[in-house]
Amino acid sequence: MTDAKGYAAPAVNEPLVPFDFQRRDVGAHDVRIEILYCGVCHSDLHQVRDEWGGSIFPMVPGHEIVGRVVEVGAHVKGFKAGDLAGVGCMVNSCQHCPECNEGLEQYCDEGFVGTYGAQDRDSTVTYGGYSNHVVVTEKFVLHVSEKLDLARVAPLLCAGITTWSPLRQWKAKAGDRVAVMGLGGLGHMAVKFAAALGCEVTVFSTSPNKEADARALGAHKFVVSKDQESMKSVSNYFDLIINTVSATMDLTPYISTLRLDGTMVLLGVPPEAPQLHAFNLIAKRRRIAGSLIGGIQETQEMLDFCAEHNVMSDVEVIPMNYINEAYERMLKSDVKYRFVLDLATI
Amino acid sequence: MTDAKGYAAPAVNEPLVPFDFQRRDVGAHDVRIEILYCGVCHSDLHQVRDEWGGSIFPMVPGHEIVGRVVEVGAHVKGFKAGDLAGVGCMVNSCQHCPECNEGLEQYCDEGFVGTYGAQDRDSTVTYGGYSNHVVVTEKFVLHVSEKLDLARVAPLLCAGITTWSPLRQWKAKAGDRVAVMGLGGLGHMAVKFAAALGCEVTVFSTSPNKEADARALGAHKFVVSKDQESMKSVSNYFDLIINTVSATMDLTPYISTLRLDGTMVLLGVPPEAPQLHAFNLIAKRRRIAGSLIGGIQETQEMLDFCAEHNVMSDVEVIPMNYINEAYERMLKSDVKYRFVLDLATI
Repeated sequence: MTDAKGYAAPAVNEPLVPFDFQRRDVGAHDVRIEILYCGVCHSDLHQVRDEWGGSIFPMVPGHEIVGRVVEVGAHVKGFKAGDLAGVGCMVNSCQHCPECNEGLEQYCDEGFVGTYGAQDRDSTVTYGGYSNHVVVTEKFVLHVSEKLDLARVAPLLCAGITTWSPLRQWKAKAGDRVAVMGLGGLGHMAVKFAAALGCEVTVFSTSPNKEADARALGAHKFVVSKDQESMKSVSNYFDLIINTVSATMDLTPYISTLRLDGTMVLLGVPPEAPQLHAFNLIAKRRRIAGSLIGGIQETQEMLDFCAEHNVMSDVEVIPMNYINEAYERMLKSDVKYRFVLDLATI
Repeated sequence: MTDAKGYAAPAVNEPLVPFDFQRRDVGAHDVRIEILYCGVCHSDLHQVRDEWGGSIFPMVPGHEIVGRVVEVGAHVKGFKAGDLAGVGCMVNSCQHCPECNEGLEQYCDEGFVGTYGAQDRDSTVTYGGYSNHVVVTEKFVLHVSEKLDLARVAPLLCAGITTWSPLRQWKAKAGDRVAVMGLGGLGHMAVKFAAALGCEVTVFSTSPNKEADARALGAHKFVVSKDQESMKSVSNYFDLIINTVSATMDLTPYISTLRLDGTMVLLGVPPEAPQLHAFNLIAKRRRIAGSLIGGIQETQEMLDFCAEHNVMSDVEVIPMNYINEAYERMLKSDVKYRFVLDLATI
């Protein structure tokens, strides 16, 4: 075992504090990564507060990890010491079910192993990226280009892949009309990706004063969802809506903006399930679909796309001891668009 | 104008009574059909009772029409007197919008013209198939094979195409696992079609005593939805669920029986919208979609498939003056599986 330093929530709802723990030694297929940056995802906060149930404490959150490889196991072929590397939401899966064999580890029949707060397949508890290093089996480690700003790469490992995957799944292509609901960590990446793919991008917002931000991110249109005229202007319009909102809301007016065979993809789970009005789906053969992060191969494709097209998150880099304040600000959506921890400060 | 005899509801909720009215003369592109049989669809009853709003009275219902061509207009190319012909839910549409140009007249941008109780594009009100003849523009008339039992063909024009279209849209093929919810007029056709396409067909039912009927229609499996063990046996199982139920129900347990990328297609509009739990969609990238009848070309394909594979509805043929009693029995689901009016009795 090797000593590690992190920040942990000792128990539910408690502030994060410095935490000493141990990581496993590097096995034959493992890669040890010195963590440079780790994004702060809203799900970190959900889990620290046990809002989804089943949280394990002490909890070291963090699943948007970028760092440098410092040690590799004897059988590791894809990485060597000195390489840049990334780790996202998963660090393991059964690796033999049909989903895993298709590169869809996020839908593993036996459940994927989360990067933190989960039981690994050897029953040890996983600790995440709010720490100085991490040991992960090679299959779940991503290559990161030296060309990109590493702090801005970190959020791609969750916010990035979570929005990239549905765009690819539903084959968003140049000229398609794509709308994005919610302009936070996920939403701002959905806008950037859809724009980089050549789509005509619209941002839905309840607030007219987000228009300049939306356009700066690459949006071509902006629709104030509380303005009925504005909504009517995009009736039967979109091929795809990426819905990143996890608040309970009435989906009906948004569904009506989908054209024939258009799809709304849900990425967030609202605390209360909204009503589903079948008529709006039937009337234009529309669809509602779910999507969960993305597979490892798809994550690599996304990172390669970002290197090629210079796509990165907009971030506010913070020191480790700022994390509790960052959580408070995140609750007020007071961040553009992702906090990223600088692990040099741990 | 030409005299016509039918049965009409004189006003909302009133019993149907004999009704004399007039049809337009046969225009250059029109076909006049002597009606032999007309299926009794549940939507006839919804509209007679104005449950969807906007009903126009007096109303001659009926949109599952089979008969023989007796007269054609000068420019009609596809039909001649003596041919068998069918008419479904639509008798017109704008015929120039993108949807119409794609053969998806049911999604016409300007709204399709219903076979009865609708305003046609010349503002006349349409009267349906509970009558002795009908005049329809050639484009909305279907060819019917002489090989089939005509009374059993009639319901294909609505119940048939409504279930056929989503099976084709979602590419149901041999070996796919298809489930059907609801074993009425639509559901029994979904079972027959899915079986004829080579799918493994499962019927969901709240009642265990429908199993023999389901298997007789071609189902390979039967799942009692109130039995948790039975439901668990099909967890993550289906590629496609055809949901024909229009009662308000909790969709969640059924969604959980979809495998990765599986789709539930909604064909009915419940009086109260059910809740949509996003988590179940997200966890396996599942989808909920709507579907509305089918296009004219697709309806012809369906009828040709039925002629080739000897697929027909199971029906109870009734005389015209039995219609009000038939409605009462339909409300109790006391029909296997479709009443069909014999128009020789009008």
